[in-house]
Amino acid sequence: MKNRIEKLDRIKNVDAFLLTSSVSLKYLTGYFYNFEIGPSPFQLIPAALFVVPSHYSGLIIADNESDQLAHLDPQIKVNPYASYSYEKPLDYSARFCIKLLELVAQTGMGSARIGVEADSLPYSICESLSLNYPDIELVDISADLIKMRMVKDDDELSLIRVATHLCDVGQEAVIKYAKPGMTELDLFKMVRGDMEMEAGKRIPMMTDLVAGLRTFEGGGNPLKYKIASGDLILSDLTPCLNGYWGDTCSTIVIGKPTLQQQDHFNLVKEALEIGVNAIKPGVQAKVIDQVMRKHLSSAGQYGHHSGHGVGIAYHEEPRIVPYNDIVLEPNMVIALEPAIYHDNYGIRLEHIVAVTQNGCEILSQFKHRFEI
Amino acid sequence: MKNRIEKLDRIKNVDAFLLTSSVSLKYLTGYFYNFEIGPSPFQLIPAALFVVPSHYSGLIIADNESDQLAHLDPQIKVNPYASYSYEKPLDYSARFCIKLLELVAQTGMGSARIGVEADSLPYSICESLSLNYPDIELVDISADLIKMRMVKDDDELSLIRVATHLCDVGQEAVIKYAKPGMTELDLFKMVRGDMEMEAGKRIPMMTDLVAGLRTFEGGGNPLKYKIASGDLILSDLTPCLNGYWGDTCSTIVIGKPTLQQQDHFNLVKEALEIGVNAIKPGVQAKVIDQVMRKHLSSAGQYGHHSGHGVGIAYHEEPRIVPYNDIVLEPNMVIALEPAIYHDNYGIRLEHIVAVTQNGCEILSQFKHRFEI
Repeated sequence: MKNRIEKLDRIKNVDAFLLTSSVSLKYLTGYFYNFEIGPSPFQLIPAALFVVPSHYSGLIIADNESDQLAHLDPQIKVNPYASYSYEKPLDYSARFCIKLLELVAQTGMGSARIGVEADSLPYSICESLSLNYPDIELVDISADLIKMRMVKDDDELSLIRVATHLCDVGQEAVIKYAKPGMTELDLFKMVRGDMEMEAGKRIPMMTDLVAGLRTFEGGGNPLKYKIASGDLILSDLTPCLNGYWGDTCSTIVIGKPTLQQQDHFNLVKEALEIGVNAIKPGVQAKVIDQVMRKHLSSAGQYGHHSGHGVGIAYHEEPRIVPYNDIVLEPNMVIALEPAIYHDNYGIRLEHIVAVTQNGCEILSQFKHRFEI
Repeated sequence: MKNRIEKLDRIKNVDAFLLTSSVSLKYLTGYFYNFEIGPSPFQLIPAALFVVPSHYSGLIIADNESDQLAHLDPQIKVNPYASYSYEKPLDYSARFCIKLLELVAQTGMGSARIGVEADSLPYSICESLSLNYPDIELVDISADLIKMRMVKDDDELSLIRVATHLCDVGQEAVIKYAKPGMTELDLFKMVRGDMEMEAGKRIPMMTDLVAGLRTFEGGGNPLKYKIASGDLILSDLTPCLNGYWGDTCSTIVIGKPTLQQQDHFNLVKEALEIGVNAIKPGVQAKVIDQVMRKHLSSAGQYGHHSGHGVGIAYHEEPRIVPYNDIVLEPNMVIALEPAIYHDNYGIRLEHIVAVTQNGCEILSQFKHRFEI
């Protein structure tokens, strides 16, 4: 991770950086804020990263977040500020800004061009900066950061592998536990239970887990619907482990499929294989989208992307969509998810792959099967 | 909820409001964004509320969030903007700002004083406003909104009751399922399973669920530690149902407690009762803190608050802490959580109450017991 901060050198025409998005914090420092319970009432933002290239890299962070620093790059200085205490009133915004102003002064950046992320930088921070340092200029560099994260470093690939392994555990659990008469929520409890036991802790997880008619809608959270014999079950499991996401989708049938369902499953499975086989460096993202859509065109069109990049965001570039000219490169990580939605059911199958020098490696080990 | 937007009239010296925090959105419009999977890569912010008192109330929201509008106050206009589509590149920030600028123009607020929440308003929005309407003045009204939410409306009390019922279900589940040899994670799976089945869906949940030595630390997420005979189990369950939180904590013993553990349990239970009995309108928050701490002073001091308000935030005013002069009023909702942390164990017991005309009503029905 040491070199990651240095990647900021590629961004020209700025003197310093003040980065506030959770993805940039994870990417550049290792710090991961678990968002599962929403915005904290004890702090302004989870943290901010202040960087003056070749001179200074420091995190401004609430002191009650100090137990979240396990994966922090040791070269990053930690600047804690007092956030919540039962012994004095809460004033986290002011305390955050005081720390930031100190860093600006210490590093001599009082009239600098500072690269920021405009969508995640709070007004209270930019207001404090502009009042105290009217010559500072803020420059939005969000697009540069998004591009920077497309090609993964080796340590990132390892983290995505481990998150993808949790998907495998989850998809096997769907097959192991799914029975007629149980609710989607019952099944979800067992599936998430196996995944969290494998992780050794709670994990954030985006989940489509639906049976029967809702498979036609392509997904949704598990509810109290009772799984019936003959139902399809669509299970799109997207867990986040230590800040990196995995993402796979399976579709199974409880009992016997109809002939048409079996045909459609085979078609989607072929489309997925065709997509995987088409992935290699030098190919445009939109070409992958085209070959998968073409294979399924006889069964109607799926009204969503054919895939997307995965990393610290569960959905990022390269998007596998009809308009995307981005050219694939080694170490991009891509989830492919072709689908058929027909009459009263839906079938979607997803693998996650890493682009290699000559093609790609499928990271998800789970083997798609329809009848269980 | 109709009257809630009108409460903004109490805030003087502003012409309009642009509110962006998730708590204000829920409070004033009913819209709840489920934060469980973190910031969405498909939108700038979950939504923004633009209000010109007596003239206009509208939500600016990504079109892919339209299924989250189930609880929206019907008087609020919905202004969706195109966020993610697989057919064209993503440009949610610009599209959001265009909608906002349209509303400012339509309502004639181009040189208004606009009340904002400085900690949650993104720089990209304030920059767009100031470039297009340099005469607009932004005024931080966060403190007014926090005060406004302290005293609950009746519909809010109902929502907190239902969330607190989930806590009761969870605490009973702890007693039902806890066995020596199972891991904290196993127990958590069953407890959350019962709570989500009662809710009929997934729910965000902050959880301390620890056994043995970690009870001394006061909490933590469930891990792979195996519960042993003689262990205490501390279970602080804080679920969020449709945007409102419940919060209770129990401590039980697996097997027989020591005499000192039993004494300490009794002391904490008494402190909780003393705190509950002291709550009534006209009493300062710090007095509740004092009477509970005093009762436990012989067993050492707990290094945290004695309680806190609960509502759309899991922790809000009135904080039950030594410095807090806030005077209790009917329809405040307060969680009390006295504790003893001693040698190698911790005992914390928590109820959630609503202040009434003459005292308070305990909303949590669960009866604290030590041996199970």
